[in-house]
Amino acid sequence: MRVSARNKLPGVVQDIQSDGLMAKVSLRIGDNHLVALVTAESVAELDLHPGDEVTALIKSTSVMLAKP
Amino acid sequence: MRVSARNKLPGVVQDIQSDGLMAKVSLRIGDNHLVALVTAESVAELDLHPGDEVTALIKSTSVMLAKP
Amino acid sequence: MRVSARNKLPGVVQDIQSDGLMAKVSLRIGDNHLVALVTAESVAELDLHPGDEVTALIKSTSVMLAKP
Amino acid sequence: MRVSARNKLPGVVQDIQSDGLMAKVSLRIGDNHLVALVTAESVAELDLHPGDEVTALIKSTSVMLAKP
Amino acid sequence: MRVSARNKLPGVVQDIQSDGLMAKVSLRIGDNHLVALVTAESVAELDLHPGDEVTALIKSTSVMLAKP
Amino acid sequence: MRVSARNKLPGVVQDIQSDGLMAKVSLRIGDNHLVALVTAESVAELDLHPGDEVTALIKSTSVMLAKP
Repeated sequence: MRVSARNKLPGVVQDIQSDGLMAKVSLRIGDNHLVALVTAESVAELDLHPGDEVTALIKSTSVMLAKP
Repeated sequence: MRVSARNKLPGVVQDIQSDGLMAKVSLRIGDNHLVALVTAESVAELDLHPGDEVTALIKSTSVMLAKP
Repeated sequence: MRVSARNKLPGVVQDIQSDGLMAKVSLRIGDNHLVALVTAESVAELDLHPGDEVTALIKSTSVMLAKP
Repeated sequence: MRVSARNKLPGVVQDIQSDGLMAKVSLRIGDNHLVALVTAESVAELDLHPGDEVTALIKSTSVMLAKP
Repeated sequence: MRVSARNKLPGVVQDIQSDGLMAKVSLRIGDNHLVALVTAESVAELDLHPGDEVTALIKSTSVMLAKP
Repeated sequence: MRVSARNKLPGVVQDIQSDGLMAKVSLRIGDNHLVALVTAESVAELDLHPGDEVTALIKSTSVMLAKP
């Protein structure tokens, strides 16, 4: 399956915190840390666990830029 | 200034394509490539050029996860 | 590949309009019409054409509800 | 009231799960299932209940496409 | 029609720039300035013109906070 | 730090409700009320409290328009 999202960052799940409807999934992407907020249902359906290899998909319209 | 976005990825601008109202800014983030679609006005206001150090800000609610 | 997005709507591409950096892709989803605004680069990379079967992925946090 | 969102999908509420600040509203849209994550406050304010006719509003920039 | 979006800011259209598929609509909201990027098709369908009274709808999940 | 977001609305925090992973931050922006849904972690990291002066950052692509 190919996805239109311009940003497909390969990473590894480091931590998952579920609370009610939501879950916070922390990833390591190269030297960076990335957090995804998804539904707890998604975590169950994808059977996500620390150590899993995943891809973070981010639409280019969702990215802001900041310059120091 | 501190920002609530959970994801603040430091990178370097590699390429900027402007067309009408929109601009596509390509960044290098560690070993990854990231694309931000912003207004051409933002590129002018931030005076963005290839080589500039920037931070990509992404809300955790904007991140989808995919598992192979 | 499994995706965390709660909304995965199967559809058929009906029309594609590209202009500069952006492309507007019109889909038929059952009896409904759906429009996706993606980069022209995505359309080229996915080799999208009218008649193609695609899936629209929409995060549940991106959906608003209106009641008459 | 007319809304700029390109995607206005008419549906029927099937299920509502509230938990703390958030609520997950499941809709039937034709033959498809759609999930909206909204605030619990929105559910109260719109007085949403299973069986209600609602419209899902989705900006075209929030739609990703996937091709098998 | 009632909308689940937590943020419904009443304003007046000040300027509209259309280019290809996209349009940038500038609003005055009280003492603030707000910009909405919508499709040119939306501008035509809503028959938007400077001086029109409109409401900006923004999901609470789309708002980032910054603190000096 | 300069940010590409077209919408930077200065406001004052009026109320913060935290629940599990999420927090709802209510702001006063001029004569308007604005709600931001962020992670509880962001609220802690920015040390947000009622009375704090903050800026709401909103990408122009996240704004819908409604006309009566």
